[in-house]
Amino acid sequence: MNADLQRVWDLMKAGGAQIPPNPTIEFMREFANGANARQPLPPGVTFTDVDENGVKGIWSQHEGVSKTRAILYFHGGGYIVGTASSWRGLWGELGRRANMRVFGVEYRLAPENPFPAAHDDGLAAYRYLLKQGLAPGSIAFAGDSAGGAMAVATMYMARAAGLPMPGAGYLIAPWMDHQLTGATIKTKADVELLAGPDTLRGMSDAYLRGHSKSDPLVSPLYGDVTGLPPLMIQVGSEETLLDDSVRFAGKAGAAKAKVALEIYPDCFHVFQSWHSMIAEAREALDHAAVFLNAHLG
Amino acid sequence: MNADLQRVWDLMKAGGAQIPPNPTIEFMREFANGANARQPLPPGVTFTDVDENGVKGIWSQHEGVSKTRAILYFHGGGYIVGTASSWRGLWGELGRRANMRVFGVEYRLAPENPFPAAHDDGLAAYRYLLKQGLAPGSIAFAGDSAGGAMAVATMYMARAAGLPMPGAGYLIAPWMDHQLTGATIKTKADVELLAGPDTLRGMSDAYLRGHSKSDPLVSPLYGDVTGLPPLMIQVGSEETLLDDSVRFAGKAGAAKAKVALEIYPDCFHVFQSWHSMIAEAREALDHAAVFLNAHLG
Repeated sequence: MNADLQRVWDLMKAGGAQIPPNPTIEFMREFANGANARQPLPPGVTFTDVDENGVKGIWSQHEGVSKTRAILYFHGGGYIVGTASSWRGLWGELGRRANMRVFGVEYRLAPENPFPAAHDDGLAAYRYLLKQGLAPGSIAFAGDSAGGAMAVATMYMARAAGLPMPGAGYLIAPWMDHQLTGATIKTKADVELLAGPDTLRGMSDAYLRGHSKSDPLVSPLYGDVTGLPPLMIQVGSEETLLDDSVRFAGKAGAAKAKVALEIYPDCFHVFQSWHSMIAEAREALDHAAVFLNAHLG
Repeated sequence: MNADLQRVWDLMKAGGAQIPPNPTIEFMREFANGANARQPLPPGVTFTDVDENGVKGIWSQHEGVSKTRAILYFHGGGYIVGTASSWRGLWGELGRRANMRVFGVEYRLAPENPFPAAHDDGLAAYRYLLKQGLAPGSIAFAGDSAGGAMAVATMYMARAAGLPMPGAGYLIAPWMDHQLTGATIKTKADVELLAGPDTLRGMSDAYLRGHSKSDPLVSPLYGDVTGLPPLMIQVGSEETLLDDSVRFAGKAGAAKAKVALEIYPDCFHVFQSWHSMIAEAREALDHAAVFLNAHLG
């Protein structure tokens, strides 16, 4: 492992050591938002809040940004924590590198708002982007962790609603299986920094409140993947969710989605957030920028 | 499916219709070599035969080619058919796009030469490249189908022999499991053009002659993948061997190999050979060229 990456591992472990046993949801929200908000905001990118007809979110833009292409971004946090605002360091940088505006959707969180609240907000955000006059094929859905699953679930929901598919997807370590059947849930549990099996189980229970864990909207691995647009999927080697990415890549590819899966050695859950410190994150975001621009109309 | 790709499918189906039931090995060799030899040779690339101390093969080179980086290429054909010469249209073009010399190894074929003859020739070819003064980290192993497996097997053999790893690997639809346990062996059997289950079984039997089908040298999926270099793996969606690629990508990635897996919709086994006719093949070879140059020393 290179020195930069080791330094970030050390930082994350030091941060994780400050989490008490059985933390409250309020603690985890402050912790996650605080940690993410410490990532630098991308230079030259401005952010504008949106609250229109029930759609909440934040637009990013910068000078010279594409007028025709945009990204709908779903932050991670297991449906329980995280905000579009505190995740701006990640998705704002993605938009800067891809030269696209990004709409970070502020979907409702559980347990206050159980399934399908967040999902409904995701579909509403897509309708909002279409209303702005963006062509569906010029929109990419993107997200990390639970947000990566929401990106695909929103494709399923769009299809069911008779809406056209977006032009591409970019999934960062997507959480594709609430049944937690991937082999790496166990084999990577001891190296996982953020999404250990117990954490995932607790988040799933809080969002689903008894709803089926194999519902394709929360577990897109079990969904009908026909007709999905080109997908770039990135995941670290040191992740419980590694197999969710591998299995979904195989399933979507077999159903004729164009798939690019990248596995980054020694990298942890959503390492892309650390682009200011590690080359792996910058490389990953650049690959995504190239992929999205190659496939959006 | 676009018109170019459809045209190649039609050509391949028309070709396949000329194969009699239970073809002889001689027929299959002529057929495979003839089909591959019809691919145009890359412009500006010259080829030089090598026969040195038991190592047979062909070097490609072109004006301005890198003096320090090279590719060791293993042609496909299930250990039974194919030659370095008739595969030049594929690996010569790879070298041209990557700006590297390529050594296409002329390994011995079964059933005349059963396991481990071909494998021994592969390792000998690597030793030959090292003797030429190439740094191991500046050599990539590449191959298609059985040759993709040989590329990885040669890494295993190099490790066992105390030789350093090459700098990268490029695997085109590698055949990683002679037990044929991938789900797509069955689910893609009806769309497979070249490597149907019976064909694979026959080739495996002819090369192994009773040797274990789970020997990692013929089934690298069952091998120790620690310490492998960065790997690019490409496969079509319409292939029995799709799951071999997906499963190996997941296993190598979990063991901290850097992995890029690309699944190309509507593409067939070793579609890269058809780069003169389909954009998908050119894109795939270009991605490989970028990947290899990014990771070789």
